[in-house]
Amino acid sequence: MITSTTKIRVRYAETDRMQFAHHTRYFEWFECARTELLREIGYSYKSVEDDGTFLPLVEANCKYIQPALYDDILEIHTSLKSLPRSTLKLDYQIIRSEDQILLAEAFTIHAMTNKNGRPIKPPIKFLNFIKENI
Amino acid sequence: MITSTTKIRVRYAETDRMQFAHHTRYFEWFECARTELLREIGYSYKSVEDDGTFLPLVEANCKYIQPALYDDILEIHTSLKSLPRSTLKLDYQIIRSEDQILLAEAFTIHAMTNKNGRPIKPPIKFLNFIKENI
Amino acid sequence: MITSTTKIRVRYAETDRMQFAHHTRYFEWFECARTELLREIGYSYKSVEDDGTFLPLVEANCKYIQPALYDDILEIHTSLKSLPRSTLKLDYQIIRSEDQILLAEAFTIHAMTNKNGRPIKPPIKFLNFIKENI
Amino acid sequence: MITSTTKIRVRYAETDRMQFAHHTRYFEWFECARTELLREIGYSYKSVEDDGTFLPLVEANCKYIQPALYDDILEIHTSLKSLPRSTLKLDYQIIRSEDQILLAEAFTIHAMTNKNGRPIKPPIKFLNFIKENI
Repeated sequence: MITSTTKIRVRYAETDRMQFAHHTRYFEWFECARTELLREIGYSYKSVEDDGTFLPLVEANCKYIQPALYDDILEIHTSLKSLPRSTLKLDYQIIRSEDQILLAEAFTIHAMTNKNGRPIKPPIKFLNFIKENI
Repeated sequence: MITSTTKIRVRYAETDRMQFAHHTRYFEWFECARTELLREIGYSYKSVEDDGTFLPLVEANCKYIQPALYDDILEIHTSLKSLPRSTLKLDYQIIRSEDQILLAEAFTIHAMTNKNGRPIKPPIKFLNFIKENI
Repeated sequence: MITSTTKIRVRYAETDRMQFAHHTRYFEWFECARTELLREIGYSYKSVEDDGTFLPLVEANCKYIQPALYDDILEIHTSLKSLPRSTLKLDYQIIRSEDQILLAEAFTIHAMTNKNGRPIKPPIKFLNFIKENI
Repeated sequence: MITSTTKIRVRYAETDRMQFAHHTRYFEWFECARTELLREIGYSYKSVEDDGTFLPLVEANCKYIQPALYDDILEIHTSLKSLPRSTLKLDYQIIRSEDQILLAEAFTIHAMTNKNGRPIKPPIKFLNFIKENI
Protein backbone atom coordinates (compact mmCIF):
# COMPACT_ATOMS: atom_id res chain seq x y z
CA MET A 1 0.00 0.00 0.00
CA ILE A 2 1.16 3.50 -0.84
CA THR A 3 -0.22 6.44 1.10
CA SER A 4 0.13 10.17 0.78
CA THR A 5 -1.27 13.23 2.53
CA THR A 6 -2.01 16.53 0.82
CA LYS A 7 -3.14 19.73 2.51
CA ILE A 8 -5.71 21.97 0.88
CA ARG A 9 -7.25 25.19 2.12
CA VAL A 10 -10.88 25.70 1.08
CA ARG A 11 -11.07 28.62 -1.37
CA TYR A 12 -13.84 31.20 -1.30
CA ALA A 13 -14.67 30.28 -4.89
CA GLU A 14 -15.25 26.72 -3.69
CA THR A 15 -18.09 27.66 -1.36
CA ASP A 16 -21.76 27.80 -2.27
CA ARG A 17 -24.78 29.65 -0.95
CA MET A 18 -25.34 26.88 1.62
CA GLN A 19 -21.99 28.10 3.08
CA PHE A 20 -20.43 24.70 2.36
CA ALA A 21 -17.58 23.80 0.06
CA HIS A 22 -19.42 22.67 -3.06
CA HIS A 23 -19.50 18.90 -3.49
CA THR A 24 -17.96 19.04 -6.98
CA ARG A 25 -14.77 20.55 -5.60
CA TYR A 26 -14.02 17.50 -3.47
CA PHE A 27 -13.27 15.61 -6.67
CA GLU A 28 -10.91 18.38 -7.72
CA TRP A 29 -9.09 18.01 -4.40
CA PHE A 30 -8.85 14.24 -4.88
CA GLU A 31 -7.24 14.95 -8.23
CA CYS A 32 -4.68 17.19 -6.52
CA ALA A 33 -4.15 14.51 -3.90
CA ARG A 34 -3.43 11.69 -6.36
CA THR A 35 -1.14 14.06 -8.29
CA GLU A 36 0.86 14.50 -5.11
CA LEU A 37 0.91 10.76 -4.39
CA LEU A 38 2.40 10.16 -7.83
CA ARG A 39 4.91 12.98 -7.35
CA GLU A 40 5.98 11.42 -4.05
CA ILE A 41 6.70 8.05 -5.64
CA GLY A 42 8.84 9.88 -8.18
CA TYR A 43 6.62 9.79 -11.25
CA SER A 44 4.54 12.95 -11.51
CA TYR A 45 1.25 12.67 -13.37
CA LYS A 46 2.59 15.25 -15.82
CA SER A 47 5.43 12.87 -16.62
CA VAL A 48 2.97 9.96 -16.87
CA GLU A 49 1.04 11.90 -19.54
CA ASP A 50 4.25 13.07 -21.22
CA ASP A 51 5.16 9.36 -21.49
CA GLY A 52 1.85 8.74 -23.27
CA THR A 53 -0.27 7.22 -20.50
CA PHE A 54 -3.58 8.75 -19.47
CA LEU A 55 -5.74 7.92 -16.47
CA PRO A 56 -9.29 9.02 -17.32
CA LEU A 57 -11.92 8.31 -14.68
CA VAL A 58 -14.26 5.39 -15.01
CA GLU A 59 -15.91 5.82 -11.63
CA ALA A 60 -15.97 8.36 -8.84
CA ASN A 61 -17.68 8.06 -5.49
CA CYS A 62 -17.77 10.31 -2.46
CA LYS A 63 -19.57 10.04 0.86
CA TYR A 64 -20.03 13.45 2.45
CA ILE A 65 -20.07 13.17 6.24
CA GLN A 66 -19.54 16.70 7.55
CA PRO A 67 -19.33 19.87 5.46
CA ALA A 68 -16.01 21.54 4.71
CA LEU A 69 -16.21 25.30 5.19
CA TYR A 70 -14.46 28.35 3.81
CA ASP A 71 -10.83 28.68 4.86
CA ASP A 72 -10.74 25.23 6.51
CA ILE A 73 -7.46 23.41 6.15
CA LEU A 74 -8.11 19.86 4.98
CA GLU A 75 -5.83 16.84 5.00
CA ILE A 76 -6.52 14.52 2.13
CA HIS A 77 -5.22 11.05 2.80
CA THR A 78 -4.83 9.06 -0.40
CA SER A 79 -4.06 5.38 -0.66
CA LEU A 80 -3.28 2.99 -3.46
CA LYS A 81 -4.08 -0.42 -2.03
CA SER A 82 -3.33 -2.71 -4.95
CA LEU A 83 -1.27 -2.78 -8.13
CA PRO A 84 -3.08 -1.35 -11.15
CA ARG A 85 -4.32 -3.90 -13.69
CA SER A 86 -6.70 -2.77 -16.40
CA THR A 87 -7.82 -0.11 -13.93
CA LEU A 88 -6.31 1.79 -11.04
CA LYS A 89 -8.20 2.46 -7.81
CA LEU A 90 -7.46 5.14 -5.26
CA ASP A 91 -9.09 5.71 -1.89
CA TYR A 92 -9.37 9.03 -0.12
CA GLN A 93 -10.27 10.42 3.26
CA ILE A 94 -10.71 14.09 4.02
CA ILE A 95 -9.84 15.09 7.57
CA ARG A 96 -10.36 18.63 8.86
CA SER A 97 -6.94 19.64 10.12
CA GLU A 98 -8.09 21.63 13.15
CA ASP A 99 -9.95 18.85 14.97
CA GLN A 100 -9.12 15.73 12.96
CA ILE A 101 -12.79 15.12 12.15
CA LEU A 102 -13.49 12.90 9.14
CA LEU A 103 -15.40 14.95 6.55
CA ALA A 104 -15.56 12.60 3.58
CA GLU A 105 -14.57 9.22 2.22
CA ALA A 106 -14.17 8.56 -1.45
CA PHE A 107 -12.68 6.47 -4.20
CA THR A 108 -11.86 6.96 -7.85
CA ILE A 109 -11.27 4.26 -10.45
CA HIS A 110 -9.21 5.11 -13.51
CA ALA A 111 -8.74 3.44 -16.86
CA MET A 112 -5.26 3.36 -18.33
CA THR A 113 -5.19 4.50 -21.94
CA ASN A 114 -2.78 5.72 -24.58
CA LYS A 115 -3.01 9.10 -26.28
CA ASN A 116 -5.82 7.89 -28.53
CA GLY A 117 -7.95 6.71 -25.64
CA ARG A 118 -7.24 3.02 -26.26
CA PRO A 119 -7.07 0.90 -23.10
CA ILE A 120 -3.55 -0.26 -22.31
CA LYS A 121 -1.94 -2.49 -19.71
CA PRO A 122 -0.10 -0.61 -16.97
CA PRO A 123 3.29 0.40 -18.41
CA ILE A 124 6.31 -1.32 -16.81
CA LYS A 125 7.77 2.07 -15.84
CA PHE A 126 4.57 2.96 -14.01
CA LEU A 127 4.46 -0.41 -12.23
CA ASN A 128 8.10 -0.13 -11.22
CA PHE A 129 7.60 3.24 -9.56
CA ILE A 130 4.73 1.74 -7.61
CA LYS A 131 6.59 -1.44 -6.63
CA GLU A 132 9.55 0.56 -5.37
CA ASN A 133 7.28 2.51 -3.05
CA ILE A 134 5.07 -0.19 -1.56
CA MET B 1 -41.38 7.51 -10.59
CA ILE B 2 -40.74 11.07 -11.75
CA THR B 3 -38.45 11.70 -14.70
CA SER B 4 -37.07 14.81 -16.31
CA THR B 5 -34.69 15.61 -19.15
CA THR B 6 -32.35 18.60 -19.22
CA LYS B 7 -30.14 19.66 -22.10
CA ILE B 8 -26.66 20.99 -21.48
CA ARG B 9 -24.02 22.10 -23.95
CA VAL B 10 -20.44 21.39 -22.85
CA ARG B 11 -18.67 24.68 -22.16
CA TYR B 12 -15.07 25.35 -23.16
CA ALA B 13 -14.28 26.05 -19.51
CA GLU B 14 -15.50 22.54 -18.70
CA THR B 15 -12.87 20.82 -20.83
CA ASP B 16 -9.43 19.76 -19.63
CA ARG B 17 -6.09 19.15 -21.35
CA MET B 18 -7.16 15.56 -22.09
CA GLN B 19 -9.77 17.23 -24.38
CA PHE B 20 -12.58 15.75 -22.26
CA ALA B 21 -15.21 17.47 -20.20
CA HIS B 22 -13.70 17.34 -16.74
CA HIS B 23 -15.24 14.70 -14.49
CA THR B 24 -16.10 17.21 -11.75
CA ARG B 25 -18.44 19.08 -14.08
CA TYR B 26 -20.73 16.10 -14.51
CA PHE B 27 -21.84 16.59 -10.92
CA GLU B 28 -22.57 20.23 -11.67
CA TRP B 29 -24.76 19.11 -14.58
CA PHE B 30 -26.59 16.66 -12.33
CA GLU B 31 -27.27 19.55 -10.00
CA CYS B 32 -28.77 21.52 -12.90
CA ALA B 33 -30.76 18.45 -13.89
CA ARG B 34 -32.34 17.89 -10.48
CA THR B 35 -33.06 21.61 -10.26
CA GLU B 36 -35.05 21.28 -13.48
CA LEU B 37 -36.85 18.15 -12.25
CA LEU B 38 -37.99 20.07 -9.18
CA ARG B 39 -39.02 23.05 -11.29
CA GLU B 40 -41.09 20.73 -13.51
CA ILE B 41 -43.03 19.31 -10.57
CA GLY B 42 -43.79 22.88 -9.54
CA TYR B 43 -41.47 23.34 -6.59
CA SER B 44 -38.19 24.89 -7.67
CA TYR B 45 -35.16 24.15 -5.52
CA LYS B 46 -34.88 27.88 -4.86
CA SER B 47 -38.39 27.74 -3.33
CA VAL B 48 -37.46 24.62 -1.39
CA GLU B 49 -34.55 26.52 0.19
CA ASP B 50 -36.67 29.64 0.67
CA ASP B 51 -39.08 27.41 2.61
CA GLY B 52 -36.22 26.36 4.87
CA THR B 53 -35.37 22.93 3.51
CA PHE B 54 -31.87 22.09 2.29
CA LEU B 55 -30.70 19.03 0.39
CA PRO B 56 -26.94 18.68 1.01
CA LEU B 57 -25.27 15.69 -0.58
CA VAL B 58 -24.45 12.63 1.45
CA GLU B 59 -23.22 10.55 -1.46
CA ALA B 60 -22.40 11.06 -5.12
CA ASN B 61 -21.43 8.41 -7.65
CA CYS B 62 -20.74 8.56 -11.35
CA LYS B 63 -19.68 5.92 -13.84
CA TYR B 64 -17.95 7.48 -16.84
CA ILE B 65 -18.52 5.39 -19.95
CA GLN B 66 -17.57 7.60 -22.91
CA PRO B 67 -16.08 11.09 -22.67
CA ALA B 68 -18.19 14.19 -23.27
CA LEU B 69 -16.40 16.66 -25.52
CA TYR B 70 -16.42 20.42 -26.06
CA ASP B 71 -19.64 21.76 -27.58
CA ASP B 72 -21.45 18.41 -27.30
CA ILE B 73 -25.13 18.68 -26.51
CA LEU B 74 -25.99 16.32 -23.66
CA GLU B 75 -29.35 15.07 -22.47
CA ILE B 76 -29.42 14.44 -18.77
CA HIS B 77 -32.20 12.08 -17.80
CA THR B 78 -33.01 12.36 -14.12
CA SER B 79 -35.31 10.09 -12.17
CA LEU B 80 -36.70 10.03 -8.69
CA LYS B 81 -37.70 6.41 -8.12
CA SER B 82 -38.99 6.48 -4.57
CA LEU B 83 -40.47 8.88 -2.06
CA PRO B 84 -37.86 10.67 0.06
CA ARG B 85 -37.57 9.46 3.65
CA SER B 86 -34.61 10.57 5.72
CA THR B 87 -32.74 10.84 2.44
CA LEU B 88 -33.62 11.51 -1.18
CA LYS B 89 -32.04 9.57 -4.06
CA LEU B 90 -31.83 10.66 -7.67
CA ASP B 91 -30.55 8.69 -10.65
CA TYR B 92 -29.04 10.18 -13.79
CA GLN B 93 -28.05 9.14 -17.27
CA ILE B 94 -26.12 11.33 -19.68
CA ILE B 95 -26.90 10.69 -23.34
CA ARG B 96 -25.02 12.48 -26.13
CA SER B 97 -27.74 14.12 -28.14
CA GLU B 98 -26.25 13.61 -31.58
CA ASP B 99 -26.05 9.81 -31.55
CA GLN B 100 -27.91 8.85 -28.38
CA ILE B 101 -24.83 7.16 -26.91
CA LEU B 102 -24.82 6.68 -23.13
CA LEU B 103 -21.90 8.63 -21.69
CA ALA B 104 -22.42 8.27 -17.95
CA GLU B 105 -24.64 6.85 -15.23
CA ALA B 106 -24.82 8.35 -11.80
CA PHE B 107 -26.72 8.82 -8.60
CA THR B 108 -26.78 11.35 -5.79
CA ILE B 109 -28.17 10.88 -2.29
CA HIS B 110 -29.25 13.92 -0.33
CA ALA B 111 -29.98 14.54 3.31
CA MET B 112 -32.92 16.75 4.18
CA THR B 113 -32.02 19.42 6.71
CA ASN B 114 -33.28 22.71 8.07
CA LYS B 115 -31.35 25.97 7.90
CA ASN B 116 -29.13 24.93 10.79
CA GLY B 117 -28.12 21.67 9.13
CA ARG B 118 -30.31 19.55 11.41
CA PRO B 119 -31.81 16.48 9.72
CA ILE B 120 -35.55 16.78 9.19
CA LYS B 121 -38.29 14.54 7.85
CA PRO B 122 -39.44 15.39 4.32
CA PRO B 123 -41.80 18.39 4.65
CA ILE B 124 -45.45 17.66 3.72
CA LYS B 125 -45.35 20.35 1.04
CA PHE B 126 -42.35 18.69 -0.58
CA LEU B 127 -43.99 15.24 -0.44
CA ASN B 128 -47.20 16.59 -1.89
CA PHE B 129 -45.48 18.06 -4.93
CA ILE B 130 -43.83 14.69 -5.51
CA LYS B 131 -47.02 12.67 -5.00
CA GLU B 132 -48.91 14.85 -7.48
CA ASN B 133 -46.33 14.14 -10.13
CA ILE B 134 -45.75 10.40 -9.80
CA MET C 1 -21.37 45.39 -35.74
CA ILE C 2 -22.49 41.86 -34.95
CA THR C 3 -24.60 41.22 -31.87
CA SER C 4 -25.90 38.11 -30.19
CA THR C 5 -27.89 37.29 -27.08
CA THR C 6 -27.40 34.15 -24.99
CA LYS C 7 -29.51 33.09 -22.03
CA ILE C 8 -27.91 31.50 -19.00
CA ARG C 9 -29.50 30.33 -15.76
CA VAL C 10 -27.29 30.75 -12.69
CA ARG C 11 -26.30 27.31 -11.40
CA TYR C 12 -26.15 26.46 -7.71
CA ALA C 13 -22.49 25.53 -8.16
CA GLU C 14 -21.88 29.07 -9.40
CA THR C 15 -22.96 30.69 -6.14
CA ASP C 16 -20.68 31.48 -3.22
CA ARG C 17 -21.18 31.95 0.51
CA MET C 18 -21.99 35.64 -0.09
CA GLN C 19 -25.10 34.26 -1.91
CA PHE C 20 -23.88 35.82 -5.17
CA ALA C 21 -22.86 34.16 -8.39
CA HIS C 22 -19.10 34.03 -8.06
CA HIS C 23 -17.28 36.66 -10.11
CA THR C 24 -15.12 34.09 -11.91
CA ARG C 25 -18.20 32.51 -13.48
CA TYR C 26 -19.12 35.66 -15.36
CA PHE C 27 -16.09 35.07 -17.58
CA GLU C 28 -17.29 31.51 -18.20
CA TRP C 29 -20.66 32.92 -19.30
CA PHE C 30 -18.95 35.39 -21.63
CA GLU C 31 -17.15 32.43 -23.15
CA CYS C 32 -20.49 30.69 -23.74
CA ALA C 33 -21.86 33.94 -25.16
CA ARG C 34 -19.09 34.45 -27.73
CA THR C 35 -19.35 30.76 -28.66
CA GLU C 36 -23.01 31.39 -29.51
CA LEU C 37 -22.20 34.58 -31.44
CA LEU C 38 -19.80 32.61 -33.61
CA ARG C 39 -22.33 29.80 -34.04
CA GLU C 40 -24.90 32.34 -35.17
CA ILE C 41 -22.64 33.76 -37.88
CA GLY C 42 -22.15 30.20 -39.11
CA TYR C 43 -18.64 29.44 -37.87
CA SER C 44 -18.74 27.72 -34.49
CA TYR C 45 -15.70 28.14 -32.28
CA LYS C 46 -15.23 24.38 -32.42
CA SER C 47 -14.88 24.68 -36.20
CA VAL C 48 -12.53 27.65 -35.79
CA GLU C 49 -10.24 25.48 -33.64
CA ASP C 50 -10.67 22.49 -35.95
CA ASP C 51 -9.45 24.78 -38.74
CA GLY C 52 -6.34 25.53 -36.68
CA THR C 53 -7.13 28.97 -35.27
CA PHE C 54 -7.14 29.63 -31.53
CA LEU C 55 -8.35 32.68 -29.67
CA PRO C 56 -6.56 32.74 -26.31
CA LEU C 57 -7.32 35.69 -24.06
CA VAL C 58 -4.95 38.59 -23.79
CA GLU C 59 -7.20 40.71 -21.60
CA ALA C 60 -10.42 40.33 -19.68
CA ASN C 61 -12.32 43.02 -17.84
CA CYS C 62 -15.62 43.00 -16.00
CA LYS C 63 -17.48 45.68 -14.09
CA TYR C 64 -19.88 44.16 -11.57
CA ILE C 65 -22.86 46.44 -11.02
CA GLN C 66 -25.50 44.31 -9.29
CA PRO C 67 -25.06 40.71 -8.12
CA ALA C 68 -26.50 37.79 -10.07
CA LEU C 69 -28.24 35.32 -7.79
CA TYR C 70 -28.99 31.61 -7.83
CA ASP C 71 -31.55 30.57 -10.43
CA ASP C 72 -31.62 34.01 -12.09
CA ILE C 73 -32.04 33.95 -15.83
CA LEU C 74 -29.47 36.22 -17.43
CA GLU C 75 -29.32 37.63 -20.93
CA ILE C 76 -25.79 38.08 -22.15
CA HIS C 77 -25.58 40.56 -24.97
CA THR C 78 -22.37 40.18 -26.93
CA SER C 79 -21.11 42.50 -29.60
CA LEU C 80 -18.24 42.49 -32.04
CA LYS C 81 -17.78 46.13 -32.99
CA SER C 82 -14.82 46.00 -35.36
CA LEU C 83 -13.08 43.56 -37.66
CA PRO C 84 -10.37 41.51 -35.95
CA ARG C 85 -6.79 42.51 -36.76
CA SER C 86 -3.98 41.11 -34.67
CA THR C 87 -6.51 40.88 -31.87
CA LEU C 88 -10.25 40.44 -31.57
CA LYS C 89 -12.36 42.40 -29.06
CA LEU C 90 -15.78 41.48 -27.78
CA ASP C 91 -18.07 43.49 -25.53
CA TYR C 92 -20.67 42.07 -23.18
CA GLN C 93 -23.56 43.20 -21.08
CA ILE C 94 -25.40 41.01 -18.59
CA ILE C 95 -29.06 41.87 -18.13
CA ARG C 96 -31.25 40.11 -15.56
CA SER C 97 -34.11 38.73 -17.58
CA GLU C 98 -36.85 39.32 -15.03
CA ASP C 99 -36.51 43.09 -14.67
CA GLN C 100 -34.02 44.01 -17.42
CA ILE C 101 -31.56 45.43 -14.87
CA LEU C 102 -27.95 45.73 -16.04
CA LEU C 103 -25.78 43.51 -13.83
CA ALA C 104 -22.39 43.72 -15.49
CA GLU C 105 -20.42 45.15 -18.39
CA ALA C 106 -17.32 43.52 -19.73
CA PHE C 107 -14.92 43.02 -22.57
CA THR C 108 -12.45 40.37 -23.63
CA ILE C 109 -9.54 40.78 -26.04
CA HIS C 110 -8.23 37.71 -27.83
CA ALA C 111 -5.06 36.97 -29.72
CA MET C 112 -5.32 34.92 -32.89
CA THR C 113 -2.82 32.08 -32.96
CA ASN C 114 -2.13 28.83 -34.76
CA LYS C 115 -1.91 25.45 -33.06
CA ASN C 116 1.59 26.20 -31.81
CA GLY C 117 0.56 29.45 -30.16
CA ARG C 118 2.17 31.62 -32.85
CA PRO C 119 0.30 34.86 -33.58
CA ILE C 120 -1.42 34.84 -36.96
CA LYS C 121 -3.40 37.32 -39.02
CA PRO C 122 -7.16 36.71 -39.02
CA PRO C 123 -7.78 33.87 -41.51
CA ILE C 124 -9.75 34.89 -44.64
CA LYS C 125 -12.44 32.32 -43.83
CA PHE C 126 -12.91 33.86 -40.39
CA LEU C 127 -13.07 37.40 -41.81
CA ASN C 128 -15.55 36.34 -44.46
CA PHE C 129 -17.98 34.89 -41.93
CA ILE C 130 -17.79 38.17 -40.03
CA LYS C 131 -18.18 40.38 -43.11
CA GLU C 132 -21.24 38.45 -44.22
CA ASN C 133 -22.91 39.11 -40.90
CA ILE C 134 -22.15 42.77 -40.28
CA MET D 1 2.21 49.64 0.42
CA ILE D 2 1.55 46.09 1.62
CA THR D 3 2.76 43.15 -0.43
CA SER D 4 2.31 39.43 -0.17
CA THR D 5 3.33 36.38 -2.20
CA THR D 6 1.25 33.22 -2.52
CA LYS D 7 2.28 30.03 -4.28
CA ILE D 8 -0.23 28.05 -6.30
CA ARG D 9 0.26 24.88 -8.31
CA VAL D 10 -1.91 24.67 -11.44
CA ARG D 11 -4.49 21.89 -10.98
CA TYR D 12 -5.46 19.49 -13.76
CA ALA D 13 -9.06 20.63 -13.37
CA GLU D 14 -7.87 24.16 -14.13
CA THR D 15 -6.60 23.30 -17.61
CA ASP D 16 -8.64 23.45 -20.80
CA ARG D 17 -8.44 21.76 -24.18
CA MET D 18 -6.00 24.45 -25.37
CA GLN D 19 -3.66 22.91 -22.72
CA PHE D 20 -3.63 26.24 -20.85
CA ALA D 21 -4.86 27.05 -17.38
CA HIS D 22 -8.30 28.46 -18.09
CA HIS D 23 -8.49 32.25 -17.85
CA THR D 24 -11.32 32.16 -15.27
CA ARG D 25 -9.10 30.38 -12.77
CA TYR D 26 -6.64 33.27 -12.59
CA PHE D 27 -9.32 35.25 -10.76
CA GLU D 28 -9.75 32.37 -8.33
CA TRP D 29 -6.01 32.47 -7.65
CA PHE D 30 -6.13 36.23 -7.09
CA GLU D 31 -8.86 35.58 -4.54
CA CYS D 32 -6.58 33.09 -2.75
CA ALA D 33 -3.75 35.60 -2.96
CA ARG D 34 -5.67 38.48 -1.38
CA THR D 35 -6.94 36.07 1.29
CA GLU D 36 -3.32 35.34 2.18
CA LEU D 37 -2.38 39.04 2.17
CA LEU D 38 -5.14 39.69 4.69
CA ARG D 39 -4.09 36.68 6.78
CA GLU D 40 -0.52 38.01 6.84
CA ILE D 41 -1.56 41.40 8.19
CA GLY D 42 -3.43 39.58 10.95
CA TYR D 43 -7.03 39.96 9.80
CA SER D 44 -8.14 36.96 7.75
CA TYR D 45 -10.91 37.54 5.24
CA LYS D 46 -12.97 35.00 7.17
CA SER D 47 -12.69 37.24 10.24
CA VAL D 48 -13.50 40.29 8.13
CA GLU D 49 -16.77 38.62 7.06
CA ASP D 50 -17.42 37.33 10.57
CA ASP D 51 -17.13 40.98 11.69
CA GLY D 52 -19.82 41.91 9.17
CA THR D 53 -17.76 43.43 6.36
CA PHE D 54 -17.93 42.08 2.83
CA LEU D 55 -15.72 42.89 -0.15
CA PRO D 56 -17.71 42.08 -3.29
CA LEU D 57 -15.99 42.82 -6.59
CA VAL D 58 -16.85 45.91 -8.54
CA GLU D 59 -14.20 45.43 -11.21
CA ALA D 60 -11.73 42.76 -12.26
CA ASN D 61 -9.10 43.02 -14.95
CA CYS D 62 -6.40 40.63 -16.10
CA LYS D 63 -3.79 40.87 -18.85
CA TYR D 64 -2.66 37.42 -19.96
CA ILE D 65 0.94 37.54 -21.18
CA GLN D 66 2.11 33.91 -21.27
CA PRO D 67 -0.04 30.86 -20.56
CA ALA D 68 0.19 28.98 -17.26
CA LEU D 69 0.35 25.23 -17.79
CA TYR D 70 -0.63 22.14 -15.83
CA ASP D 71 1.49 21.51 -12.74
CA ASP D 72 3.30 24.87 -13.03
CA ILE D 73 4.12 26.49 -9.71
CA LEU D 74 3.04 30.12 -9.78
CA GLU D 75 3.97 32.96 -7.48
CA ILE D 76 1.20 35.47 -7.10
CA HIS D 77 2.47 38.82 -5.93
CA THR D 78 -0.30 40.91 -4.45
CA SER D 79 -0.06 44.54 -3.45
CA LEU D 80 -2.30 47.01 -1.73
CA LYS D 81 -0.97 50.41 -2.75
CA SER D 82 -3.36 52.77 -1.02
CA LEU D 83 -5.70 52.88 1.95
CA PRO D 84 -9.23 51.70 1.15
CA ARG D 85 -11.84 54.44 0.89
CA SER D 86 -15.23 53.60 -0.55
CA THR D 87 -13.43 50.91 -2.53
CA LEU D 88 -10.34 48.78 -2.11
CA LYS D 89 -7.94 48.08 -4.97
CA LEU D 90 -5.47 45.23 -5.20
CA ASP D 91 -2.83 44.62 -7.85
CA TYR D 92 -1.44 41.23 -8.84
CA GLN D 93 1.37 39.75 -10.84
CA ILE D 94 1.71 36.08 -11.66
CA ILE D 95 5.28 34.87 -12.02
CA ARG D 96 6.10 31.31 -13.09
CA SER D 97 8.30 30.00 -10.30
CA GLU D 98 10.68 27.97 -12.44
CA ASP D 99 11.99 30.76 -14.66
CA GLN D 100 10.56 33.92 -13.08
CA ILE D 101 8.68 34.82 -16.27
CA LEU D 102 5.75 37.21 -15.86
CA LEU D 103 2.57 35.43 -16.95
CA ALA D 104 -0.14 37.91 -16.05
CA GLU D 105 -0.89 41.29 -14.51
CA ALA D 106 -4.20 42.09 -12.93
CA PHE D 107 -6.18 44.19 -10.55
CA THR D 108 -9.42 43.83 -8.63
CA ILE D 109 -11.52 46.60 -7.13
CA HIS D 110 -13.82 45.79 -4.24
CA ALA D 111 -16.72 47.57 -2.64
CA MET D 112 -17.03 47.50 1.12
CA THR D 113 -20.49 46.52 2.29
CA ASN D 114 -22.31 45.30 5.33
CA LYS D 115 -24.24 42.01 5.52
CA ASN D 116 -27.14 43.50 3.63
CA GLY D 117 -25.02 44.67 0.73
CA ARG D 118 -25.13 48.34 1.77
CA PRO D 119 -21.94 50.30 1.04
CA ILE D 120 -20.02 51.19 4.18
CA LYS D 121 -16.90 53.19 4.99
CA PRO D 122 -13.85 51.05 5.76
CA PRO D 123 -14.22 49.89 9.40
CA ILE D 124 -11.65 51.31 11.82
CA LYS D 125 -10.49 47.80 12.73
CA PHE D 126 -9.82 47.04 9.07
CA LEU D 127 -7.93 50.32 8.57
CA ASN D 128 -5.86 49.75 11.68
CA PHE D 129 -4.67 46.33 10.51
CA ILE D 130 -3.62 47.93 7.25
CA LYS D 131 -1.90 50.92 8.84
CA GLU D 132 0.11 48.67 11.14
CA ASN D 133 1.46 46.78 8.16
CA ILE D 134 2.35 49.55 5.71
